[in-house]
Amino acid sequence: MSTVDTPVRLQAVSAPDQPDVTPALESLYRGFEEELLIPLWTEIGDLMPAHPRSRALPHVWKWENLLKLAEQAGELVPVGRGGERRAIALANPGLGGRPFATPTLWAAIQYLMPGEDAPEHRHTQHAFRFVVEGSGVWTVVGGDPVPMNRGDFLPQAGWNWHAHHNATSEPMAWIDGLDIPFQYTNEAQFFEFGRDEISDAERTTPERSRSEQLWGHPGLRPVSATAGAPGSPLLSYKWSFTDAALNDQLALEKAGYAGTVEPGHAAVRYTNPATAGDVLPTIRTEFHRIVRGAETAPVRETGSSVYQVFDGAGTVTVGDKSWSVTRGDLFVVPSWEPFSAKSEAGASDSDSGALDLFRFSDAPVFEALQLNRIQKDA
Amino acid sequence: MSTVDTPVRLQAVSAPDQPDVTPALESLYRGFEEELLIPLWTEIGDLMPAHPRSRALPHVWKWENLLKLAEQAGELVPVGRGGERRAIALANPGLGGRPFATPTLWAAIQYLMPGEDAPEHRHTQHAFRFVVEGSGVWTVVGGDPVPMNRGDFLPQAGWNWHAHHNATSEPMAWIDGLDIPFQYTNEAQFFEFGRDEISDAERTTPERSRSEQLWGHPGLRPVSATAGAPGSPLLSYKWSFTDAALNDQLALEKAGYAGTVEPGHAAVRYTNPATAGDVLPTIRTEFHRIVRGAETAPVRETGSSVYQVFDGAGTVTVGDKSWSVTRGDLFVVPSWEPFSAKSEAGASDSDSGALDLFRFSDAPVFEALQLNRIQKDA
Amino acid sequence: MSTVDTPVRLQAVSAPDQPDVTPALESLYRGFEEELLIPLWTEIGDLMPAHPRSRALPHVWKWENLLKLAEQAGELVPVGRGGERRAIALANPGLGGRPFATPTLWAAIQYLMPGEDAPEHRHTQHAFRFVVEGSGVWTVVGGDPVPMNRGDFLPQAGWNWHAHHNATSEPMAWIDGLDIPFQYTNEAQFFEFGRDEISDAERTTPERSRSEQLWGHPGLRPVSATAGAPGSPLLSYKWSFTDAALNDQLALEKAGYAGTVEPGHAAVRYTNPATAGDVLPTIRTEFHRIVRGAETAPVRETGSSVYQVFDGAGTVTVGDKSWSVTRGDLFVVPSWEPFSAKSEAGASDSDSGALDLFRFSDAPVFEALQLNRIQKDA
Amino acid sequence: MSTVDTPVRLQAVSAPDQPDVTPALESLYRGFEEELLIPLWTEIGDLMPAHPRSRALPHVWKWENLLKLAEQAGELVPVGRGGERRAIALANPGLGGRPFATPTLWAAIQYLMPGEDAPEHRHTQHAFRFVVEGSGVWTVVGGDPVPMNRGDFLPQAGWNWHAHHNATSEPMAWIDGLDIPFQYTNEAQFFEFGRDEISDAERTTPERSRSEQLWGHPGLRPVSATAGAPGSPLLSYKWSFTDAALNDQLALEKAGYAGTVEPGHAAVRYTNPATAGDVLPTIRTEFHRIVRGAETAPVRETGSSVYQVFDGAGTVTVGDKSWSVTRGDLFVVPSWEPFSAKSEAGASDSDSGALDLFRFSDAPVFEALQLNRIQKDA
Repeated sequence: MSTVDTPVRLQAVSAPDQPDVTPALESLYRGFEEELLIPLWTEIGDLMPAHPRSRALPHVWKWENLLKLAEQAGELVPVGRGGERRAIALANPGLGGRPFATPTLWAAIQYLMPGEDAPEHRHTQHAFRFVVEGSGVWTVVGGDPVPMNRGDFLPQAGWNWHAHHNATSEPMAWIDGLDIPFQYTNEAQFFEFGRDEISDAERTTPERSRSEQLWGHPGLRPVSATAGAPGSPLLSYKWSFTDAALNDQLALEKAGYAGTVEPGHAAVRYTNPATAGDVLPTIRTEFHRIVRGAETAPVRETGSSVYQVFDGAGTVTVGDKSWSVTRGDLFVVPSWEPFSAKSEAGASDSDSGALDLFRFSDAPVFEALQLNRIQKDA
Repeated sequence: MSTVDTPVRLQAVSAPDQPDVTPALESLYRGFEEELLIPLWTEIGDLMPAHPRSRALPHVWKWENLLKLAEQAGELVPVGRGGERRAIALANPGLGGRPFATPTLWAAIQYLMPGEDAPEHRHTQHAFRFVVEGSGVWTVVGGDPVPMNRGDFLPQAGWNWHAHHNATSEPMAWIDGLDIPFQYTNEAQFFEFGRDEISDAERTTPERSRSEQLWGHPGLRPVSATAGAPGSPLLSYKWSFTDAALNDQLALEKAGYAGTVEPGHAAVRYTNPATAGDVLPTIRTEFHRIVRGAETAPVRETGSSVYQVFDGAGTVTVGDKSWSVTRGDLFVVPSWEPFSAKSEAGASDSDSGALDLFRFSDAPVFEALQLNRIQKDA
Repeated sequence: MSTVDTPVRLQAVSAPDQPDVTPALESLYRGFEEELLIPLWTEIGDLMPAHPRSRALPHVWKWENLLKLAEQAGELVPVGRGGERRAIALANPGLGGRPFATPTLWAAIQYLMPGEDAPEHRHTQHAFRFVVEGSGVWTVVGGDPVPMNRGDFLPQAGWNWHAHHNATSEPMAWIDGLDIPFQYTNEAQFFEFGRDEISDAERTTPERSRSEQLWGHPGLRPVSATAGAPGSPLLSYKWSFTDAALNDQLALEKAGYAGTVEPGHAAVRYTNPATAGDVLPTIRTEFHRIVRGAETAPVRETGSSVYQVFDGAGTVTVGDKSWSVTRGDLFVVPSWEPFSAKSEAGASDSDSGALDLFRFSDAPVFEALQLNRIQKDA
Repeated sequence: MSTVDTPVRLQAVSAPDQPDVTPALESLYRGFEEELLIPLWTEIGDLMPAHPRSRALPHVWKWENLLKLAEQAGELVPVGRGGERRAIALANPGLGGRPFATPTLWAAIQYLMPGEDAPEHRHTQHAFRFVVEGSGVWTVVGGDPVPMNRGDFLPQAGWNWHAHHNATSEPMAWIDGLDIPFQYTNEAQFFEFGRDEISDAERTTPERSRSEQLWGHPGLRPVSATAGAPGSPLLSYKWSFTDAALNDQLALEKAGYAGTVEPGHAAVRYTNPATAGDVLPTIRTEFHRIVRGAETAPVRETGSSVYQVFDGAGTVTVGDKSWSVTRGDLFVVPSWEPFSAKSEAGASDSDSGALDLFRFSDAPVFEALQLNRIQKDA
């Protein structure tokens, strides 16, 4: 626990909504300070705005810069007990120099050198990995080695033991998403160290994790499964399935049937096959494909999102900012900022010309607490 | 939206868990700063502790001091549009000089002079009133005037229009609890001004609100009720019911039957009669009665609470701090700090000699997101 | 298990929808019979009607006749182990001479002589008692004696031990409602004998059961309560609360506010205070008050109901039948039969002139399985 | 509605549990009959047994006999409006000569000649198709043609328009499962005729239905999906997925990991990808694979099941009956009858030697109403 008390400082100001500045008021305010009190009337504009005015700012991080710095860290920073992971987090410029992409979400690039292990631990923070490029690392979750390849999504609910192992002769990078800021702010988090070394068996390189063997079949649930811990028992959502699902939606659209979110915009949500809800109690993850030339209608939502460009190129607009983005770039959409994306013909490096976006957000928090609101064509 | 970007500042330090401080590392850190990045390995101790280490501090606010300052504010600070309410909030000394009792909860004394109105508005923040002394104010919720008397608890879920009116010739104080910090941090809040004046009909002084006529009968629900907005449709939980429920538990205990939480410790939770869940989506409220001489076993829980002493006197212990408390005093129990309370014979000003504690907490947030943990006899 | 097999009998008939009656068809039908097979095409009209066509028939049972026979049974039929209860059930004339009021519901008058005990047992069938007149019997549920007086409603979820005791010098009658037909048809039921004699302590005559001390306070839940067995932990819903809730709705209507189901028609549903859902997993119970001169709009619903007139008098219409009813009379509303009730001035023996109806139905079954449908102003 | 009232007939009998047979008792019983009343004491043994004693009997229907009769029906019985379907239902010998496989479930063989259509209709009864052999028929559900091939499972929730079309030059048979008895007994059912002819477009022969394009991807949900009607939006669970899921469980078992129900016994449950619950509100469906030589432990459950042998051969034991079964055979397991199955080496016609069993049951009804009970190693 912090042992330094923060003093309260109140300034009497002349303003139409504020009480007259008199010596008596000044004296009252000194009394408030002494007793650690703050009046609503000086704070209401900040605390109770007409709609969310995010402190988090829209911002883009370029993948090539991230990757370059991660590579340097690979040379300079060992991975081991204590530091635990060679992970480098986005620090939203509106959030006080903290490693918080948004008020609730952590987003980092993680980097593992050939043959390296990241030691086993567990924590209540919910996490996932998403692979924008490369392959060869196994995340070992509860003793189950899960391969990681481009496009794969690996959720990992809180309090599962996990470690990483790079089985190849190449370094590998991927992104980690966690609810670290949410659990930090709300003071919910627990952490434990696990084994320093994973076993040789866990270094094997199966094509599929055991979790996929049990839970990776559409609409089929193992009868042996019992009600489980929070979060998805399926530890990998392989790219081939995601890609096929998106293409199927676009094929339906082309044939004149419902399926896409809007014209040229296919999207799937990763779900927990044991509940059909979100894969993690605090984090929603989705994959969006915007076909060449299509543009999504602006949407405002309560809650914040982080996007990574998986493929293609285009322009994304968040509030009054727009950026050109390409493979690997990450950007933040703060609460209630209108967002739209446009897939730009020609600039794409994807086969299809589509702009492919991976998205994660804190929507489950907002929905569980009935704080979700959405405004389309914002 | 804030327009000032916060720079990232990273300091390379020599420590067993940290990479060697070299010019190359320094250069890497400058690169991180430029790109708004922060590595995990410098932050992990703060972000991922073994268990919650609250920034919020245990603290007690004495009612007599609060009330004195509220009375002065009654003289100096008008109530009207803009400032909206003459409410003075607890500022936890660990939370950066913000008007936050805990990371999630707002607690304030509100004060209304004879004949005064506080103007109508609504907001997504969930709120309640609890009356430790006095009477005579009506909270008008959605046009339904709800009387407020000592011991009454008035929940008021987000987005309901509400105003206050003091119908008497005496000032009145009470406490407000809200989830302002939670919605502020997560950027969820909306606010709208309502009518500047409430109608004469709303200034009437019924014994019971219409909500009580519809929903205030034990185990009985109006067939006409339709699925409603979040939060309890019952706008007042009158003291007589709470008091009787607590006494009934103690009578059961005396007769040898289950009912109390532990010997000498009766407790009820206020619930939404339409769902049997908490009265508000983000706030749990309870009333605890500890009989003369009894002491509760220490308990640690994730999530934070604010208590107000309703009656009696005793000693409360939070972590390594203990205070003597008496009627009206407010104190904070941060996340995972062990808490116990002892009812002190003789010092009490209650008839029964019991220590009566009103409690509110953010438990619904933790339960909805499966982050709740409890450790008894901590 | 029954050991007698039922043969299949198929008759080939000439009809527009049916195949031509030929020797080959006759031979096919004999083949079906041999193999225990029945074709859809001969049965579809009965099995798959355009809407429910109830085999159960609307019917009324007059209380005076029921009571007279129950009194005779009091003289002739002892209560003891084996027979278990002096209960006499309504046998719907459409349901094959079985003691089934409707396809899912059992309704019986139970009668206990002065000083008599009905022995303890338990069963998975969900049950309740409702008292139209008299007092003096205690139902002992799990060792908790629950007094029974006019207007009281006592739910008793399956698998709770229970016995009855008449502590007075007068006989007493009441009605029992159970889901015996539902559990019989679906073959779900278990039964166990309990103690032959209840203890002297259980023969005491408390004003309130312990369950009421714990759970009978509006909107308040004991913190000590843990997630429980199916069904309400509140074992008595006393008449004074029900009566007050109905009068409050009518007072709201008179004052111009919402609350009643329709003009002059107040209604409450008994709910489980631990879940806010129905008191029993398979049975819904409600109380309806129709003021003098008012008439309810016809309603059709899937599922069946049994009503008992608690007070007043009037005319009830079920499908194409109408009856004059008065205190104690029971009648059945089969599935999808339109129902309405009219309160008749002058004929009433209630103080208020209102027609008071207690209702129970199988609505929770229909809602849990998403089979509920309703048509107003049918 | 039936217009014939059923009389009540009561017989006074001498028995230890029964009242003395006297002229007064006989007269009382005549009074009961007149008033349509039946006492509990004469019925309790039948109505409230110690545990479920099923009227439904264990029974097996041989596929070769079923198919032969269905083929004859193909010659003699046209399919058209009125008769609607050439479906021939199992009539459990304990259930009064009704076309009920169990008290809740309908099971029938349906047969369609080359080029035939079964006309469009809809009903609240929940239904599915399961294909034990053959191919070539399309079930058109809400305009979406769904191909049917060996091993495919096609759920079809109530109130969806549907028709069948045989696009080939061969007849085809499959089994239909519905909750006709449950909805019949509880009087819940609605039915409507649809178009007499489906369109040419609906006679097309896609590889996959549109529902599979939208919902057939593991752990992925279309973002465009809105909360829907009861029952699975996925209209076909193709055999290749089911087969792979079962083999994966057995591979896990072989590698020493959890996954099977018990040694040599793999099983999957078909689930609704929008809820993760059962595919139909009233029917559970599962597929069980018992490897050569393995035997399942006896299990008793409340509720009834129908099984069809999909492949292999073996011995199944239900209560005190045992049968040798082979491909296509159907058998019934009544409520609370112990069931076990043994896969018999050598007798099998499957490649793997495993006994493959498709199962459907009324478990969702029992679980929704908290009436489910299970006893393992019964």
